[in-house]
Amino acid sequence: MNRDEVKRLLRTQHIETPSWAYGNSGTRFKVFAEPGVPRTPYEKIDDAAMVHRLTGVAPTVALHIPWDRVDDYADLASYAKDQGVAIGAINPNVFQDDDYKLGSVCSPDPKVRRKAVEHLLECVGIARETGSKQLSFWFADGTNYAGQDSIRARQDRLAEALSETYAAMPANMTMLLEYKLFEPAFYQMDLPDWGTSYMHCLQLGPQAKVLVDTGHHAPGTNIEMIVAVLLRAGRLGGFHFNSRYYADDDLMVGAADPFGLFRIMHEIVSASAMDGVAFMLDQCHNIEGKVPALIRSVMNVQEATAKALLVDADALTRAQAEGDVLSAHGALMDAFATDVRPLLAELRDEMGLHLDPMQAYRESGYQQRIVAERVGGTAMGWGA
Amino acid sequence: MNRDEVKRLLRTQHIETPSWAYGNSGTRFKVFAEPGVPRTPYEKIDDAAMVHRLTGVAPTVALHIPWDRVDDYADLASYAKDQGVAIGAINPNVFQDDDYKLGSVCSPDPKVRRKAVEHLLECVGIARETGSKQLSFWFADGTNYAGQDSIRARQDRLAEALSETYAAMPANMTMLLEYKLFEPAFYQMDLPDWGTSYMHCLQLGPQAKVLVDTGHHAPGTNIEMIVAVLLRAGRLGGFHFNSRYYADDDLMVGAADPFGLFRIMHEIVSASAMDGVAFMLDQCHNIEGKVPALIRSVMNVQEATAKALLVDADALTRAQAEGDVLSAHGALMDAFATDVRPLLAELRDEMGLHLDPMQAYRESGYQQRIVAERVGGTAMGWGA
Amino acid sequence: MNRDEVKRLLRTQHIETPSWAYGNSGTRFKVFAEPGVPRTPYEKIDDAAMVHRLTGVAPTVALHIPWDRVDDYADLASYAKDQGVAIGAINPNVFQDDDYKLGSVCSPDPKVRRKAVEHLLECVGIARETGSKQLSFWFADGTNYAGQDSIRARQDRLAEALSETYAAMPANMTMLLEYKLFEPAFYQMDLPDWGTSYMHCLQLGPQAKVLVDTGHHAPGTNIEMIVAVLLRAGRLGGFHFNSRYYADDDLMVGAADPFGLFRIMHEIVSASAMDGVAFMLDQCHNIEGKVPALIRSVMNVQEATAKALLVDADALTRAQAEGDVLSAHGALMDAFATDVRPLLAELRDEMGLHLDPMQAYRESGYQQRIVAERVGGTAMGWGA
Amino acid sequence: MNRDEVKRLLRTQHIETPSWAYGNSGTRFKVFAEPGVPRTPYEKIDDAAMVHRLTGVAPTVALHIPWDRVDDYADLASYAKDQGVAIGAINPNVFQDDDYKLGSVCSPDPKVRRKAVEHLLECVGIARETGSKQLSFWFADGTNYAGQDSIRARQDRLAEALSETYAAMPANMTMLLEYKLFEPAFYQMDLPDWGTSYMHCLQLGPQAKVLVDTGHHAPGTNIEMIVAVLLRAGRLGGFHFNSRYYADDDLMVGAADPFGLFRIMHEIVSASAMDGVAFMLDQCHNIEGKVPALIRSVMNVQEATAKALLVDADALTRAQAEGDVLSAHGALMDAFATDVRPLLAELRDEMGLHLDPMQAYRESGYQQRIVAERVGGTAMGWGA
Repeated sequence: MNRDEVKRLLRTQHIETPSWAYGNSGTRFKVFAEPGVPRTPYEKIDDAAMVHRLTGVAPTVALHIPWDRVDDYADLASYAKDQGVAIGAINPNVFQDDDYKLGSVCSPDPKVRRKAVEHLLECVGIARETGSKQLSFWFADGTNYAGQDSIRARQDRLAEALSETYAAMPANMTMLLEYKLFEPAFYQMDLPDWGTSYMHCLQLGPQAKVLVDTGHHAPGTNIEMIVAVLLRAGRLGGFHFNSRYYADDDLMVGAADPFGLFRIMHEIVSASAMDGVAFMLDQCHNIEGKVPALIRSVMNVQEATAKALLVDADALTRAQAEGDVLSAHGALMDAFATDVRPLLAELRDEMGLHLDPMQAYRESGYQQRIVAERVGGTAMGWGA
Repeated sequence: MNRDEVKRLLRTQHIETPSWAYGNSGTRFKVFAEPGVPRTPYEKIDDAAMVHRLTGVAPTVALHIPWDRVDDYADLASYAKDQGVAIGAINPNVFQDDDYKLGSVCSPDPKVRRKAVEHLLECVGIARETGSKQLSFWFADGTNYAGQDSIRARQDRLAEALSETYAAMPANMTMLLEYKLFEPAFYQMDLPDWGTSYMHCLQLGPQAKVLVDTGHHAPGTNIEMIVAVLLRAGRLGGFHFNSRYYADDDLMVGAADPFGLFRIMHEIVSASAMDGVAFMLDQCHNIEGKVPALIRSVMNVQEATAKALLVDADALTRAQAEGDVLSAHGALMDAFATDVRPLLAELRDEMGLHLDPMQAYRESGYQQRIVAERVGGTAMGWGA
Repeated sequence: MNRDEVKRLLRTQHIETPSWAYGNSGTRFKVFAEPGVPRTPYEKIDDAAMVHRLTGVAPTVALHIPWDRVDDYADLASYAKDQGVAIGAINPNVFQDDDYKLGSVCSPDPKVRRKAVEHLLECVGIARETGSKQLSFWFADGTNYAGQDSIRARQDRLAEALSETYAAMPANMTMLLEYKLFEPAFYQMDLPDWGTSYMHCLQLGPQAKVLVDTGHHAPGTNIEMIVAVLLRAGRLGGFHFNSRYYADDDLMVGAADPFGLFRIMHEIVSASAMDGVAFMLDQCHNIEGKVPALIRSVMNVQEATAKALLVDADALTRAQAEGDVLSAHGALMDAFATDVRPLLAELRDEMGLHLDPMQAYRESGYQQRIVAERVGGTAMGWGA
Repeated sequence: MNRDEVKRLLRTQHIETPSWAYGNSGTRFKVFAEPGVPRTPYEKIDDAAMVHRLTGVAPTVALHIPWDRVDDYADLASYAKDQGVAIGAINPNVFQDDDYKLGSVCSPDPKVRRKAVEHLLECVGIARETGSKQLSFWFADGTNYAGQDSIRARQDRLAEALSETYAAMPANMTMLLEYKLFEPAFYQMDLPDWGTSYMHCLQLGPQAKVLVDTGHHAPGTNIEMIVAVLLRAGRLGGFHFNSRYYADDDLMVGAADPFGLFRIMHEIVSASAMDGVAFMLDQCHNIEGKVPALIRSVMNVQEATAKALLVDADALTRAQAEGDVLSAHGALMDAFATDVRPLLAELRDEMGLHLDPMQAYRESGYQQRIVAERVGGTAMGWGA
């Protein structure tokens, strides 16, 4: 692909940031508070808009309900528009009420299941009101002890809840169904792997697709393999990007395994699927500044994408066809070894952006401003 | 379930032993030779028949082609019948010719793919001739290096090969499609997980089902969850049982994780699926005696099954419905804590067997006899 | 070992419960509140005393400072004594102040390190005041991103802090040094494995020993191997028992891997080390009742110990010496297959206890009483 | 570090290739034969010399005994010298005789242990004769089943064997003690982790150091942490480099995790330890050409080293001291993002080498020559 085509595609790539990543987050051991953190969903949108202003490729922000509950969602959407961004995926939360101790849509208690489904339906409504086209569903449901509940019965309950919600979606809305191996449940999760999500999506219909969170797999899982298989089946909805060394560490995407991120992007580029897939971040910035961490994360996705676009597809395909292992591998590695920072600086220049968004942020005074202005009130937090 | 019903079900459980487990096996570092190992498929059947004579629940033996290639399969089946056993699943081998260096049905070379499909079709024929109703397909296909081949193209080739083979199967035959995370390929396997196997089975039709080898998962994978989900979808074909601490260690089933085996059997019992599932062993006895290791393995599956059958289903269901975590878990653990060896001795007594198959083997003189008789010729080996 | 000797040893085994396990706990996603949870360290001691009254083998309770900070530690110790228990290990907490965002004793900031060391020294004092002989040190220190800090400099700081604290310990006090692979730090922990703990213990002196938390290892780690090696080196201080399927799940010990627990106890019994090792629980009861969960956990350790004591050591040693793999393994498995609940009931009967502590708890009315009495005030929580 | 200093250090880096990597290798499923593979240790040296001629930084080749057994080691060393290389580490093999089924130096059978120690002593002699200064010890010892042997007794036997061998070493020889989590033993390995190797090294004396094989760890293990800790203790002997996605995959170093390799090199550079550490490859080229795979591997180590040398140490240290997480991480990532291929081409030019060793190999006609010449005889293989 020539340099101009690479830049053209990079310009069209949209990377969604999550509202919750602008708030405080942490582990079960401690949530460290940071000054300047948003106190309202509106302030989160301010931060997301700042990330978009500096990177040019982060035009939407995902909401998490009820963390981002407001009285008037149309007003929130309008506010976002004024800041230059739009509302992205709507993420329901069915894991933080005391009722959900034994699960939400999979709970043995029908009243709890009803409550959970009502919240899912509420989120369909919020998506309509905010103009969002995507519901992003992650369920914390599962059990901690063998025998605690019937795995099979929980699948039936899950299918029923999803089915009712799916029926309520308008035709232009997509349900993205996320899976996770473990945490917060430690014996089994009700949607532990892509296979289970895929099975439910098939039953639901074409508007249901699988969402891949890059931190939600067992050690050793080849994520780009899942990406390739789901793309082939037309069921890859998108990503929750982040990176990890161990479990669901939720570090900045590209920080722990830049080569892995590149391999994922290579599968997407190979399948010409750049615009069919939702690129969303889902991270926790426990010890680093939130806004700059998100800027850096967006840049990391861009760099991996640029490298993937630079792969010499002809050379690669030829070597693959000839069974020339070292040359085929070499064609991929040549792209990964390339320093794409100059190319991206060039792109930013063409887009009227600062060549280095990190430096631009430091020079902007934004951080000092939010620290000064956001005093009083309650800082928003992941999980609050 | 009352004691008699438990015994009745245990009596009907069939555990298939694999012909290759009677031969020498090892790791890439060394295959240690053991005296008395079979030199022909007929001698393997002798050993399998011995295991069945002592345990009463291992009436079939799986074949591996070409390791068990003979001129006259009908004769082999007839010989088996005379020894009191029958031919079980037919396992093709498309990984040990030099042609298969870059894969078999997924190879970039169409001639290699053709050769592989021809072998699969040959195995359909062998199943017909031996009266076997099951094809058990495991593919070593995959790549070692990122970029080596197109993941997606390989999926297409796989689908095509399976489709042609499926079309050749008679209506009463089942294709069991196995998956494996890694080894012998170390970047990606073309069938790495149950989701990919399931996806291909769906495309093929109702005679294709997923085969779960208990050693073929990433660390931390909850296998009984997969079992439950596949049973619910009607696509669990059966098992290749073995046990492991690390990777595909192929140790005796129940030796490394007896509690995990019990949890698997609990899902099957809960789904009343005891007879719809093929219980097959797939193990390597690298350092222990092969025949007694298989006897012990069959006993281990029986013990886990007996414990699963002894679960107080009413107490369990009640506690689950009440959300009583400790009591529900306790109901399961009570069954696991039970010493079922007396029950199994009773069952064996009723079946006219020695109460302790291991002791019966030691007392039988069989081992001494095969060591004495099986001299000259080439000992058969796993991978040879 | 004969039955009487087994019972005698079981009677002498002491299993310490942790004060924090009686409070609320959870994951980063949610801490579910339970009625009746203690509001003060004194109420935690009440609960621990109840566990000891019913099991007879849990005579001490570990404290966590500052969660269990009181004005008068001598009074707390005296109160415990009145309830029939004693204060066990003192656990400092150097991870929940905002100052500790980048570490405690390993922080790049010398003022933070000073603060952390002062807290360690305070805990030496609390141990003196409460009559405790053990300091149990776990550090959450580590980094999230490659390059964030110098791994080597952090080791130097750690060594310095430990050295100062060690020097302040009286001669009859032991420093137990815990390690953990990951969480809350996700790139590297400063004490990630037993080797690093051991290295620091060697430098400190004979009063420093390694503490093994069974949930703090990489997947596949053979924990009993670590136990055996540390026992041989005279450096196994004790355990933080719990169980897990995935990461540091902190489930009830014996719930997820009863066979693994048995193998650990077998190493201890084989080394005749029953009284040189501290058996401590460290668990989170996120969704189950806390007091009964701890009773059950104590029972699980007892059952595993009983099975380990029942191993036919002569038969085992003989088969091992002969290289008889199946018989040696069989000797171990025979003990594991044994139902030891009758033996433990007999022991409890001899100790004047109810035969079934779980049932005794249900019948005691204790749960109803604490739910009724403990209203108002703030429920204590893990991490609060 | 300035560019000239970087190049100076890169020029001094020595990367040892292993004789066995030039022969055929594979998995337990199949060893694929490649034409042109060496038939004698002399031909292996020819290949190693070719790798050195093209890369300029691979001046030694490790031997594996008995795979490389010759009548006259002085002659072999002299032959190597004539080809421009020298004999590197001597690797004994105590895992491929039938005697070693239950272990070598840890076997329960004293005769087997004696035989193993004699072989170790033989290797001390071979090191003397070939002028090698390093013994590289890896033991396949371990057990497959819980109870199979006494873990503790095996440690005692190991210590005894190492001690006798250590005593026979001349003062200028180093014993490098390797560890491995699993394979070929699947319950426990007698040297499973760096801690156990370190413990034995401490007991032996200053000439014993730990050897880190990058493929021998549990999933999630932070290898650079081990490197840092061992360097600090003065006990890092060196590496067996390779790369992996899953287990001990033995892929080309840098192929699966280039960022991980860089992080390891960063620890070494940070500790100014470039010349105290043995950089050795230990790989299996199952499906790719052996000589070019080794050239590529040497280049991969060079690239990672170059990036590590380019880290702006001042900026890094400053950001670390300030607790500026993003800048510190950024300083490291900037070096990793750099394309060092031009710098290495420049270095090669200065060394009188072809700028691209892979292309130089293709143009050399060497591969065609060995395929043509090496017919007849038995191709050497890993494990043969």
